[in-house]
Amino acid sequence: MWEFSELSHEEAARQRRRYEPLTASVRELIDATLRTEVGDEVVASVKSEIDAAAGKLRGQQREGGLGISLTPDGEPVAWGNLANGLRNPLAPPLVVQRNGHVKAHVDVELGAAYEGAPGHLHGGYGALVLDHLLGDVASYGSPHTVAATGTITYRYQRPTRLGHLRAEAEIQKTEGRKIFVIGHLADAEGVTVTAEGVFIALRR
Amino acid sequence: MWEFSELSHEEAARQRRRYEPLTASVRELIDATLRTEVGDEVVASVKSEIDAAAGKLRGQQREGGLGISLTPDGEPVAWGNLANGLRNPLAPPLVVQRNGHVKAHVDVELGAAYEGAPGHLHGGYGALVLDHLLGDVASYGSPHTVAATGTITYRYQRPTRLGHLRAEAEIQKTEGRKIFVIGHLADAEGVTVTAEGVFIALRR
Repeated sequence: MWEFSELSHEEAARQRRRYEPLTASVRELIDATLRTEVGDEVVASVKSEIDAAAGKLRGQQREGGLGISLTPDGEPVAWGNLANGLRNPLAPPLVVQRNGHVKAHVDVELGAAYEGAPGHLHGGYGALVLDHLLGDVASYGSPHTVAATGTITYRYQRPTRLGHLRAEAEIQKTEGRKIFVIGHLADAEGVTVTAEGVFIALRR
Repeated sequence: MWEFSELSHEEAARQRRRYEPLTASVRELIDATLRTEVGDEVVASVKSEIDAAAGKLRGQQREGGLGISLTPDGEPVAWGNLANGLRNPLAPPLVVQRNGHVKAHVDVELGAAYEGAPGHLHGGYGALVLDHLLGDVASYGSPHTVAATGTITYRYQRPTRLGHLRAEAEIQKTEGRKIFVIGHLADAEGVTVTAEGVFIALRR
């Protein structure tokens, strides 16, 4: 269904060493850009510096997205993924921690750049975190399976405070190719959003 | 419920002139960072330049998120919002176009930084776009009302190709404080995700 490129462990490690620190710096710049209160002159000079930096990076670049690479073990390495891409400055990144074969969780710190209502997480990003985690859990069944999202329902119990967040998910049952997964997102005061998803198992 | 700051039209215009070009440049940098294939030396020097630029912006900055300002007409100006924030490099930004009182749409170009499966939009971002649009439509009722998301169900019909996307939504009915909104996301080949949401009208 999807095309994957192959990558040795050594090459994957080399690319991480080269590009991860740059990506981390751009994440810092995003936050600094959003919250700065410096005046016209500093803003204009920083803008020129950023344009020059982008020009250097564009000196050699690939067409389109980064896709997913597979190591020789068949482990996927997500480079560009919006949620967990090692090279995507838009990704916090989300790191899914597996707990056995049917459960997993994500701990993540989300700040000003993820705001919707003042001081709170954009409701759509709560959905994105849960979509990503539930999809990951649904794909546990087999290394040759990838789970496509069928339907997900989100129930918003109250707004989610920005800061440290935790999402949890687990497989409830499977019926043929259908995988039923439930989960929730929580802030420091408890659960804020619950999710119920039905995923479809596809051969990779 | 939420706290809003007040802002004159002149001050809002001044802040846009100052910060929007910088934000646009950081959006370009994000894409350049993601897709670059330049070598170790260029990456290291660009990283230093970006760190220096972020340091200058941090010379004066506000605590926490940017929240929402209201102009004297009561029109909200979203500065930091993850979906439509004028000053948020993570926002494409999404621009909601209203069509009368119960319908609206969004046209947006989403590239490599929004990838999930190779060449396709992250499923969670499809939810984010629809969450944002449906919530906006649900808030049309009155300038003193803001709609909080209750429940949203997304049905994924097939993966969404990256590129030009269009989302549409409309209010189906209201029952007391409940507002029922439906919508969909489409790529060049047609509808990819449908959404059904129930929102709760709150006084602003």
